[in-house]
Amino acid sequence: MKQVTCAIVAIGSELLEGSVLDTNSNYLAINLSKHGFTVTDVRMVIDDKNKILKTFKEQFTTHDIILTTGGIGPTFDDLTAEIFAIATERELKQNPTAYKHMADRLAQLGVAIGEGHLRQVELPVDTDLFDNKFGTALGFGTEYKGTYIASLPGVPFEMKYIFENHLIQFLIDRFKPETIHFKDLIFASLPESIIDEDIRKFELVDTTIILNAGKAQLKVKFRGKDLCEIDKYAQVLVDKYPKNFLGYDTDSIAKLVVDKCITHKYTIGFAESCTGGMVSQMITDIAGSSEIFMGSIISYSNKVKINQLKVDPTIIDTHGAVSSECANAMAIGARDVLGVDYAVSITGIAGPTGGTDDKPVGLVYIAISSNKNTVVFEERLKGDRESIRIRSTNIALFKLLEIIKSS
Amino acid sequence: MKQVTCAIVAIGSELLEGSVLDTNSNYLAINLSKHGFTVTDVRMVIDDKNKILKTFKEQFTTHDIILTTGGIGPTFDDLTAEIFAIATERELKQNPTAYKHMADRLAQLGVAIGEGHLRQVELPVDTDLFDNKFGTALGFGTEYKGTYIASLPGVPFEMKYIFENHLIQFLIDRFKPETIHFKDLIFASLPESIIDEDIRKFELVDTTIILNAGKAQLKVKFRGKDLCEIDKYAQVLVDKYPKNFLGYDTDSIAKLVVDKCITHKYTIGFAESCTGGMVSQMITDIAGSSEIFMGSIISYSNKVKINQLKVDPTIIDTHGAVSSECANAMAIGARDVLGVDYAVSITGIAGPTGGTDDKPVGLVYIAISSNKNTVVFEERLKGDRESIRIRSTNIALFKLLEIIKSS
Repeated sequence: MKQVTCAIVAIGSELLEGSVLDTNSNYLAINLSKHGFTVTDVRMVIDDKNKILKTFKEQFTTHDIILTTGGIGPTFDDLTAEIFAIATERELKQNPTAYKHMADRLAQLGVAIGEGHLRQVELPVDTDLFDNKFGTALGFGTEYKGTYIASLPGVPFEMKYIFENHLIQFLIDRFKPETIHFKDLIFASLPESIIDEDIRKFELVDTTIILNAGKAQLKVKFRGKDLCEIDKYAQVLVDKYPKNFLGYDTDSIAKLVVDKCITHKYTIGFAESCTGGMVSQMITDIAGSSEIFMGSIISYSNKVKINQLKVDPTIIDTHGAVSSECANAMAIGARDVLGVDYAVSITGIAGPTGGTDDKPVGLVYIAISSNKNTVVFEERLKGDRESIRIRSTNIALFKLLEIIKSS
Repeated sequence: MKQVTCAIVAIGSELLEGSVLDTNSNYLAINLSKHGFTVTDVRMVIDDKNKILKTFKEQFTTHDIILTTGGIGPTFDDLTAEIFAIATERELKQNPTAYKHMADRLAQLGVAIGEGHLRQVELPVDTDLFDNKFGTALGFGTEYKGTYIASLPGVPFEMKYIFENHLIQFLIDRFKPETIHFKDLIFASLPESIIDEDIRKFELVDTTIILNAGKAQLKVKFRGKDLCEIDKYAQVLVDKYPKNFLGYDTDSIAKLVVDKCITHKYTIGFAESCTGGMVSQMITDIAGSSEIFMGSIISYSNKVKINQLKVDPTIIDTHGAVSSECANAMAIGARDVLGVDYAVSITGIAGPTGGTDDKPVGLVYIAISSNKNTVVFEERLKGDRESIRIRSTNIALFKLLEIIKSS
């Protein structure tokens, strides 16, 4: 059975100028891949008629599906419908369904219908429409020369709503992509180059492996039609690096922590210094986290460490706020004041300033306190401020997960 | 003077499968644009020799600069140097400088040189090298048929380091791009379609406008060679919507808040419920925020609201945790316990569950407490969990900024 290939085209000058980070293509790539489609091309195009038309024409000859995001709103730079019509040799006409949807929505919001809104509902004739619960612009799609092209809004939550609720099932029914099996192995503290030597020795027939060295973790992603082959080679790696192997899950580490805590009925909370809320934010990204996450103290200043986390001021005076001792006291204090089963503290120097020879940028202490004990980990991380904060967050969640697993 | 055009090629199967979000292209787009280069093409390509080669060949005829990210590491799927050599008709040879850099770094880390590492330092002959402080792989670049092509690592902080410290100045010296003037206007609570009608009436000669409707804000971005023209039309919009106009800055709202607080020597802190740390995280993203940000209480559970923020339990019993009264009490409590000049509280229902007819998903209360008073704002937001959290965060920071500005 042949692959069903998809091209993604993100339309918008703001993307190529960098004022907006394109997250839509990533979302579409994840969700198309999950359902067995193969994304072979992702591009960004500026709001320029010729550029968009040229891109569409190139994609038509080489892909089964083209998905576009952006450029279907009411403003001067929204050109997708017009170019879509030219590319698929269709007339552009006011679409009554799209008009009604737009008019109803604007009435609700108390906004008058403007010229731009009228232009926005001029769609190529004979297209399928995909409902948009969150915005005035409907998604639309059609087949042309064997390729199915569909256009979605650029606003991420509108795009996601249409894709999830209407478009993906439509595409599955139409293209019936082959089932693809997935297995993701997550390893910690294992250099990419080491596992690469193992992978090179594999004699893979139907399986693709994607290596993904993230911050403080390495993902080895198996993809293929033959689950037996995937399982066989995945097991080779798991058996070879048992200490580094963290799990099979495709989920985020935050999701794993939340799920484990829900299973064990453990409550958690954090005392964050250098991560400044990032750990809590990652946990609360997960729907349902309120069941187990009670809260956190973000103690950027020493005063907050002392007053809210009950850290003894002499610890800070003697060892500094970035010290094993302070991390230890922060975790114990957080567990107490937040009333949780597990409290994790993070204190470190994220930079770019604040480092010394003795305590350089990247020095981070993580402590985990439970009713059994409190353990402290020292990490010396490389990278810029953002990267140090993200790595600290991931390590803190990994350590917490390990401790909960072994509890 | 003609534009200096750039193509960005992000190489890596993990990008097209969605397992990694490509932030490198966005970073490069922002920083190239800032220096007067025009990014006209951004693509992602899988780790496949033919696909990469085809992309390079297409870009050579049409761009002044090609920047690639990814695929220069030591593993089996790292193909960039090899294809770079083919595309630029150069031999691939072990590069002594690259070898020394790799060997020194691995020695430091106590890792043995593997086969992959040797392959990694086989670079096209006659290329410029760009130092990488954070990794084993150097950046490299060369001119071919009038196009300058440079390859950088995929690891974001390594890529950024090389670009910022070595590559950008090299490209500026070589291409001498024209100075481009920028002016970004930020508006709040102004529909995109309204301002669009004004923009359509502008008679622009040398100026480009990019509209960017973000979460809870609208950016109107002027770009061009003629600062007078930019200023003239920017002023039209500022004068027409004085109440909605927030500022000229290209900076993030968090940066504006931090800068204002530093200027006024105000300290701030947060009491976050539904945003779960996102507001604090955005503030602490800004280097130097420790000067004015003292800390936060993330009060996901009612117990933490009561114990840490001193919210009267009868308020929660009577009005609920998501209420104007509770937001008010949280902000007052936070100001007191954190000892800050301005405390902002956020409590709401981010969904997907937890909403009722009376208090639907998207209902959010934001309170700001200072020594003058405490004000509460009610917001009814649309969208999914992530989007509601981001909008709440942005609105909270906007409101804080407004209040600080008028103080």
